[in-house]
Formats: sequence, structure tokens, C-alpha cells
Amino acid sequence: MTTVSPVSDAYAKGKAFTEATNPGMEDALSNRYGAVLPGLARDLVELNGRIYPRGVLDNKTRELLTISALTALGGQTKPQLKIHVAAARKLGLSQQEISEAIYQMSLYGGMPAMFNALNAAMEVFAAEEETS
Amino acid sequence: MTTVSPVSDAYAKGKAFTEATNPGMEDALSNRYGAVLPGLARDLVELNGRIYPRGVLDNKTRELLTISALTALGGQTKPQLKIHVAAARKLGLSQQEISEAIYQMSLYGGMPAMFNALNAAMEVFAAEEETS
Amino acid sequence: MTTVSPVSDAYAKGKAFTEATNPGMEDALSNRYGAVLPGLARDLVELNGRIYPRGVLDNKTRELLTISALTALGGQTKPQLKIHVAAARKLGLSQQEISEAIYQMSLYGGMPAMFNALNAAMEVFAAEEETS
Amino acid sequence: MTTVSPVSDAYAKGKAFTEATNPGMEDALSNRYGAVLPGLARDLVELNGRIYPRGVLDNKTRELLTISALTALGGQTKPQLKIHVAAARKLGLSQQEISEAIYQMSLYGGMPAMFNALNAAMEVFAAEEETS
Amino acid sequence: MTTVSPVSDAYAKGKAFTEATNPGMEDALSNRYGAVLPGLARDLVELNGRIYPRGVLDNKTRELLTISALTALGGQTKPQLKIHVAAARKLGLSQQEISEAIYQMSLYGGMPAMFNALNAAMEVFAAEEETS
Amino acid sequence: MTTVSPVSDAYAKGKAFTEATNPGMEDALSNRYGAVLPGLARDLVELNGRIYPRGVLDNKTRELLTISALTALGGQTKPQLKIHVAAARKLGLSQQEISEAIYQMSLYGGMPAMFNALNAAMEVFAAEEETS
Repeated sequence: MTTVSPVSDAYAKGKAFTEATNPGMEDALSNRYGAVLPGLARDLVELNGRIYPRGVLDNKTRELLTISALTALGGQTKPQLKIHVAAARKLGLSQQEISEAIYQMSLYGGMPAMFNALNAAMEVFAAEEETS
Repeated sequence: MTTVSPVSDAYAKGKAFTEATNPGMEDALSNRYGAVLPGLARDLVELNGRIYPRGVLDNKTRELLTISALTALGGQTKPQLKIHVAAARKLGLSQQEISEAIYQMSLYGGMPAMFNALNAAMEVFAAEEETS
Repeated sequence: MTTVSPVSDAYAKGKAFTEATNPGMEDALSNRYGAVLPGLARDLVELNGRIYPRGVLDNKTRELLTISALTALGGQTKPQLKIHVAAARKLGLSQQEISEAIYQMSLYGGMPAMFNALNAAMEVFAAEEETS
Repeated sequence: MTTVSPVSDAYAKGKAFTEATNPGMEDALSNRYGAVLPGLARDLVELNGRIYPRGVLDNKTRELLTISALTALGGQTKPQLKIHVAAARKLGLSQQEISEAIYQMSLYGGMPAMFNALNAAMEVFAAEEETS
Repeated sequence: MTTVSPVSDAYAKGKAFTEATNPGMEDALSNRYGAVLPGLARDLVELNGRIYPRGVLDNKTRELLTISALTALGGQTKPQLKIHVAAARKLGLSQQEISEAIYQMSLYGGMPAMFNALNAAMEVFAAEEETS
Repeated sequence: MTTVSPVSDAYAKGKAFTEATNPGMEDALSNRYGAVLPGLARDLVELNGRIYPRGVLDNKTRELLTISALTALGGQTKPQLKIHVAAARKLGLSQQEISEAIYQMSLYGGMPAMFNALNAAMEVFAAEEETS
């Protein structure tokens, strides 16, 4: 009943997605973690390729979903949140759209989670101005 | 610098939003919790009115964000997740769109959180078929 | 520099506290868990005896603190929350005091955590009426 | 059945509470977040005004409840915990009362959450000595 | 630098592992979730095949690690915890080994998380006696 | 039915365990926290003595369980994770064994939790090379 993508397809789709949103990710992960966890970098690319390109939802919506979840989970996700805020910006989401997604989470994850995420996003926004 | 909605406005907007997505919510909350926590029902309507109708993001996107966050937070949010899945359906989101938002969360909240949320959503989907 | 209570003292204090707030706890735990985890029941009595009778804060305040924390942690703590709500009632805290502590947590743990805890507390309140 | 405070009342109460415990909060929030999230600063003042001045529990108790919850939620709440520890001190709570509330949480949120919170509180205590 | 298993290999390894610990899992997942999330069942088998058979740690140790993590995450993981406790039993771990892993988590996830997990494990243990 | 260790025994066992895995812990804790929380340092030694030396599971396995749980709980446990990674190394666990335990947690605590823990562990590994 289920249709399944072969791995080469999942890896290729994941590579296209991660290069578009987070260029150089696989090499960076491989260099950093390859000695203790061989395969992790490729696994992560492929895992992204099994989720984000499934269709039904577009990538901009999917990035907002990830940002909302990382917000609600709490400020310990700051490094990952910054990566996804930057990815969302690359996909064309505005600073306000991202900020609204974060603010809404105050209802579900509480105020501390919201403020910690908003501060992380604003670090990404501030870095944009420095490089523009 | 900030523009502020007066409370009557926030309450009215929240009432419109909650009646559209979760009809009868204020009365139900008031009847259930009014004796121990007077004001809670109206507070919650108004709070929804201060968040969801802010614009920038449309309500369908906002409901998906909430569903993603409740998924990532873990299966203890099941009662609230079911309410928001039903609200998302009322707003016109498909079962597949909701399911994809939940599945994506396996990357950020882990597999147990994803499966618990998916099971909650499927209870809502099954109830639709019974009443259709 | 630190002053230390010998174990017999911690156990005795914990026994007094748990019998006052949760009568029969040690025996119930011992019967239920003793086969797989010998010592757990006594450990827990003693652990309560090392925390709750430290002074500085009175027991009513300490029970409210526990209720707040269990609320913020999320609805999965329902069994423990009900035990502590019942303990708080035994110590003389009103239904409204307990409900206010829970409601305040909506700011820090989010609305789902608050509602799940409030529902748990109301089960305890309802059971009181049945037995009164 | 529920009695409701009009917004001006909630805002005024929240302003009085936040100025007493965290002076200058609204202006600081407005300056920092107003561009991406207009209204957030005023919303937060009003939200505090809807919770803390409800009565039933006094403000010192309420601050201890917040500190306990932030502790149990884990060390990612450090920025918010420091704000509330400072607020608790302004309201007259002793360092020992605050520390006892945190220590009790080791039972419910685990040792790592307790130690991270205790370290955050001690940063606030140390800053007091520097400014006294 | 990294050595990578092709997908067929990961799927085959995952199939062997899940059939040994949780027989019929892929079919059950496919039947239950295939309509809303095509591919999920196969993805999960493969994902298990990318993690558990990596070597370095044996499967009994890996199951105990999973049980500890599910315990610390809180009682909302009960359905998954029961699956992994049953898997651990199939791999030859004793009831006491599983219980000790859970009890240790009281230090890190708190008492409520520990008790909820212990209760879940005891449901699995009780079911064993019924079927033996 | 339960067999109970007297406190002197628990303290002595905890002292032996903590000195082997985290030398000087009690004195460090006592100096740092003794003024605000008298007894905490000794309590923690004794608590370790009530859990880790229970037998059934060996200490190397127990340290891996703790590392897995701290990973799944999220990156806010970084200070405690580093202490336990160092303890695991003292007990003879390899960098790869520790890394595999962390990587497995991506399935249960999500990718952000896994990466934050892996980064913490790698700080400990890097410090080893500097001192060797």
C-alpha cells in the first residue's frame, strides 16, 4: 500500500534540500563528527530527504513548523533554531512571519520558551544586517 | 512604537476565532472552571484574540504551527491536540496536511512524540467518518 | 560546614510527613514495587524526610510549589499531581489556592499543561464531594 | 458566573506589579521587540496583570511558585529564572527561601534541573553583594 | 571518511532487528498509518536499521538505553516504553535489570517520570505471567 | 520484604562511587552550596550511594544509561552531561561507546537533543587530548 523512495532518491532529495537551506551541511557534519560517528552526516542528509520533500506541504510552511516546534521545546534548541531561522530566511520567509510563529508559541510552550526563541531569531536577523 | 488593540477588540476577535474553530468554547470553559477560576474562560478567548488574528500568517498556517508544537511537546498534550486537529479540519486543512506536519516532528521531538500525536489525530479523523 | 541529619532522623521525619499527607504510602509502595525494586519504598520515605522537613518554608507552601512544578512539567504527571493535590487539601489548602497556583503556570508551562493539571485537580475536588 | 476585569484594569494592575518587581520591563521589551512584534510588550504587562493580582495567593508565594516551575522545566529557563529570583528578592523573600524552593524540585524535575536553577539563583545572589 | 550503508542494507538490518524485537511491526504500522502517511512504516524499519545494528554497543545495552531515555522523558511515552520493555525481555534482559534502569532515572528525570515508567514496565511484566 | 541499607552504608558506598568517578565532588559541592543549602552535598553523595551500587547493572552500563537520559532530556543538561561523560571515561568506556549511546537518542529525543549532547561530549573528549 505504501510507496517507497529508494535511498539514492532520498539522499539526492535531501542533498538538494539541505544545500538550498543550509549549504555545506554534510561536509561540515562529516568533518566534525565523522571520527566518532561515521555515517551520521550522510544519515542526516538522507533523513531530511525523507521528510521535507514529501510534498503536501511546501518548504516554507515546513520551515515554520520546525521553528514553532523548536520554540515550544525550549531555549536549549537555540543552535538548531538559529539554523532553521536562517534556512527560513533563505526560502523567503520574512522576519515578521518567523517572529509571529514564535510569538504564537507563548500559548503552548510558555513565555520563557517564546522569549528564548525570539532572542535566538533576533541574533540571526541582526547578523543579516551586518552582512548586507 | 507599538500599536495596541483595546481589550474589547481582542475579546471580539478572539470570540470570532474561537467560535469559528471551536464553537461554544467560552461557555464550556466557564461552566467547567468558573467556580474555581472565575475569569479563565474569558481570559482564554481574549488571549486567542491577541494571537491568532494578528495577521502576517493566515489561520490555516497558524493551526498547523500549533499542531506541530503540541506534537513536539509530547503525547501529554493529547486533549489539546485533538481540539486543534478538529479546528484545523474546520479551517479546511486536509488529513494529509495535518499528518505531514506531525510526521515532520519526528526529527525534532522524537518518534514517541510523533506517534502519540499521530494516534490522537487519527482519533479525530475516525470521528469525522462516523459523523459524515 | 554543613549540618547533617542521620538517616534514622530523615526516615522518621519522612515517615511523619508522608503519614500526614499520604497515609499508608510506604506500605503501598513496598507491596507494589518491593519485588522488583527492594528498598524503593523506604528510600522514598527517607527522601521526603530529607526535603520537606528542612524548615525555612512551611509544608503548605512546599505542597503548592510541588503542584506548580508538576503542572508546568505537563499532564503526564497526572498521577503524582493528584496525590499532591490531595496532600495539599489535607494540609488545609483551599481548592481556590490550588487552582490559582495551577492557573499561574499557564504563563510558564503553556495552556495545555495548565488545563491538564486543572482537570486532574478537579478530579480530586470531585472525589472530596463524593466522600463528604 | 465569571467576574471579568476590563483591560484597562488588567493593564494597570500588571503595570503596578511589573514596576514593583521588574522596573522598566515594558519599555525594555518594547524597545527590544517592538519592531518585529508590535504589541508584545503591552500584552505581557497585561498578562501579568491578569494572573498575579488575582488574589487568593500573595505575591511572595506566587513568585516562589514561578521559581519552582522554572526550575523543574530545566536550565534553559535561566534568563527568566534570574528575573524572577531578582523579583522574589525585591518582594522580600530570603536567599534561603528561594534556595529551598529550588532544592525541593530535585524530587520532581531531577538533579540536573535543580543544579542549573541553583546556579542561576546564585548568580543573582552574587550580584546583590556586588551592588550592596 | 564516513562509511555508509546502502539503503537496502539498512532496511534489511532494520527488518531483522525489528522482527526479532517487535515481530510484525512494519505490517502493523503500514496497515494503521499507510493511508495518511505512505512510507512511514518502511522509513521506521530502515531508521532502526541505521541505528541499532551499528555495533560498538550490543542490542541488550541499546534497549536499556532506550528504556532509560523514555523514562526520563516522562510518562507520556508509555506506549513506546511498553514496546521497548517487551523488546528488552525478548532480548533476555531480566525484570530486575529493566527496573533498575528505570529506578536510576529518578535522579535525572524526577520521581514522577520514574514511577510512571515503572508502572508501564510492570504492566508488561504482568502480561508475561498471564501468557506463561 | 525490602532489605534496607542503613545510611552510613549508603553514604560510604556513595562516597566510594563519587570519588571513583568524580573526585572531590562532595567538598566542591559543600564549598559552593553549603551556605544556602546546608546538607545538599552530603545528601547527593548518599543519594548516589543508594542508586549506583545497587548491583544488577554494572557501573559502566549505569553511566551509559545516565548519558542517554541526559541526552534525551535536551541540551540544558550540558553541565551534568559533561560530568557523566568524564565519569564514563574514567570507568573505561570508549569515546565511540559514549557517542553511539548519544546518537541512538536521536530517535527518542529528536535531532536537536542529540546534537547538543554530542557537542558536549566532544568538549570532554577534546579536553582529554589536551591533558594527555
